[in-house]
Amino acid sequence: MFMFEKPLGMIDTLPALYDVKKKTRQMMTDVIENWGFQFIETPTLEFYETVGVQSAILDQQLFKLLDQQGQTLVLRPDMTAPIARVAASRLYTNTYPIRLAYSANVFRAQHREGGRPAEFEQVGIELIGDGTTSADAEVISLMISSLKEAGLTNFKVAIGHIGFVNALFKEVVGNEERADTLRRFLYEKNYVGYREHVKSLALSSIDKQRLLSLLKLRGDLEKVTEAQDLVSSEDGRAALEELRQLWSHLEVFGVTDYLKLDCNLVSHMSYYTGILFEVYAENVGFLIANGGRYDTLFEKFDRAAAATGFGIRTDRLIEALKVSSDQKIYCVIFSQERRADATQFTSQLRAEGNRVVMQEITGIKDVDAFSKMFYDVTYFIGSRKEERDE
Amino acid sequence: MFMFEKPLGMIDTLPALYDVKKKTRQMMTDVIENWGFQFIETPTLEFYETVGVQSAILDQQLFKLLDQQGQTLVLRPDMTAPIARVAASRLYTNTYPIRLAYSANVFRAQHREGGRPAEFEQVGIELIGDGTTSADAEVISLMISSLKEAGLTNFKVAIGHIGFVNALFKEVVGNEERADTLRRFLYEKNYVGYREHVKSLALSSIDKQRLLSLLKLRGDLEKVTEAQDLVSSEDGRAALEELRQLWSHLEVFGVTDYLKLDCNLVSHMSYYTGILFEVYAENVGFLIANGGRYDTLFEKFDRAAAATGFGIRTDRLIEALKVSSDQKIYCVIFSQERRADATQFTSQLRAEGNRVVMQEITGIKDVDAFSKMFYDVTYFIGSRKEERDE
Repeated sequence: MFMFEKPLGMIDTLPALYDVKKKTRQMMTDVIENWGFQFIETPTLEFYETVGVQSAILDQQLFKLLDQQGQTLVLRPDMTAPIARVAASRLYTNTYPIRLAYSANVFRAQHREGGRPAEFEQVGIELIGDGTTSADAEVISLMISSLKEAGLTNFKVAIGHIGFVNALFKEVVGNEERADTLRRFLYEKNYVGYREHVKSLALSSIDKQRLLSLLKLRGDLEKVTEAQDLVSSEDGRAALEELRQLWSHLEVFGVTDYLKLDCNLVSHMSYYTGILFEVYAENVGFLIANGGRYDTLFEKFDRAAAATGFGIRTDRLIEALKVSSDQKIYCVIFSQERRADATQFTSQLRAEGNRVVMQEITGIKDVDAFSKMFYDVTYFIGSRKEERDE
Repeated sequence: MFMFEKPLGMIDTLPALYDVKKKTRQMMTDVIENWGFQFIETPTLEFYETVGVQSAILDQQLFKLLDQQGQTLVLRPDMTAPIARVAASRLYTNTYPIRLAYSANVFRAQHREGGRPAEFEQVGIELIGDGTTSADAEVISLMISSLKEAGLTNFKVAIGHIGFVNALFKEVVGNEERADTLRRFLYEKNYVGYREHVKSLALSSIDKQRLLSLLKLRGDLEKVTEAQDLVSSEDGRAALEELRQLWSHLEVFGVTDYLKLDCNLVSHMSYYTGILFEVYAENVGFLIANGGRYDTLFEKFDRAAAATGFGIRTDRLIEALKVSSDQKIYCVIFSQERRADATQFTSQLRAEGNRVVMQEITGIKDVDAFSKMFYDVTYFIGSRKEERDE
């Protein structure tokens, strides 16, 4: 093995990107704090039996290890389950709703070279213990504000409701197994496959049409009215009413320009229980952020609660932003006898908020190459006065 | 297993401490950037064969796991070896000296309950490719500045030189095995054991006295003069001359009030190669920061270079600071029909830089308990004007 190798999917973040990442993260965490959410940090390692099993991430994507006591540990695959653990234990005395936030790396084992990171940062929130559509609206508005503050402009939030999809499938295909097959096509965004599958089902042409119409329910609020023709059950109607309420709340927040109704959105096979959403930027093809309501997770941690939240992928957001770092680093190069002058000069430059390296000349092997790395170099050498090399 | 359990040594950082930690970290990273060091991030997982083997941390303290390809991975036990890997590979074209910094969690497996964290944050720097004492002085001064900016006042930096200790032992006991036994006593700070062991050695009383005198070499610069009487080899004298130079450079930086010469300092059994240091705060018994010169590590990564650096333990620094969080979170509680008023009022409060939660009243189970969690609550309910409950 070469000494410079890294495990599959692991990446180094070098200074220029680190700088952009730090600033982008800071913009988002400032907004999130401004909205009264409180940040917490949880361990990188958790028990497989607690957080591992309850996470929304597939088992094969977990990094697992054995601890000294023979227990299976996982590197946290997301932050939602750890936050549920904390809210249900250490924050047990806090009254709901609880608003928590995180900025943390999560881990997904990669099985082959494919450019996907095995470790990446998520900035996100969880709003726990509030089942109203006001909570859903707050989460979505805060996500939009965070993305805007970070500098993202051309993006859309696709909003759906898993309760509507489930109700439609239940009404039309009856059993869960058949509904699951349909859901999987939507989850994989394989609409061609979905159409083919629907056509192959032993259903009346009216029912087939209902299932196919689902794919057209993308657009603005009026799609909710169209959707109403597809379902008759109470669950289905209730889901659509929630979408209507949500849209109205989001109008008050003034963010409807960023919205797109997408009634066939299925972000996960089983995790979400209500309103859910995904963010795409116009110039890149990948998901930048997502989230939704997950009202059943907290039961597993013995403190049942409605909950909703979002997670933003910092790496993908930065890629969509296409910004670059503008780090200007000054350098003061000095010889032994001018140390005091150089120190004073450097202190002054630093006090003015500049980033300044102070370097003794005998510590440099190649002064020409070295000085090229800086925005500006000042020399304090021998008995000469300082000379600037700009 | 209870759902709220965490692996041994793993901790949650709740909002109040998170806030203190974030501010403390920010103070330090601002200074470090101000001195021209560039932050990088490396993966949490590294190959055992590269970073794991080259780290200064004992093998039994490493968290190990197998990846899908059957390679052994480790959770990074420190940041020095990963930074060496990056400097030797991705930054290969950068001319030395290179100044890099990090703020990252590192991992140490714990074998029993003892309150020691298995994951903790270090903020630190590495100055790579400069073997002069100016580099040592810069690292120590920057560490002192970082600690001071973070708010630490009563602390001392113990400074030693492993080259002096090694030279003395070589002169007196001759072989490496016997020197190692003596070094281990100092490394474990077991001075009683050291004395007993020295007395038991088959040495002349003069030589025993030389070894015992080592323990007294703690104080200010004049101890260097006393130390000179104990060694006659070139290596020993050169080490003391470096300490003298270092002290003189640190006088120019104006930080000698924080220094304590400690000629018997041994921070690691084999890692350091020259000047080394440890920081203790006066009100707490544990090490807050440490570092030193490690000129042999980079050979292992095929890019030989002198190097020195420090690492500060954020958790211990915070404990020594004894500061607390002063998060003031406002709350606006509204009913459905006052949503627009509440939104406008909240936006204004947030725009003034306040942290404000906006909460619909039907989402709260216990309004009295909920409102107690905030610094100030404003109600927009029914047709009443807003009412403040302070």
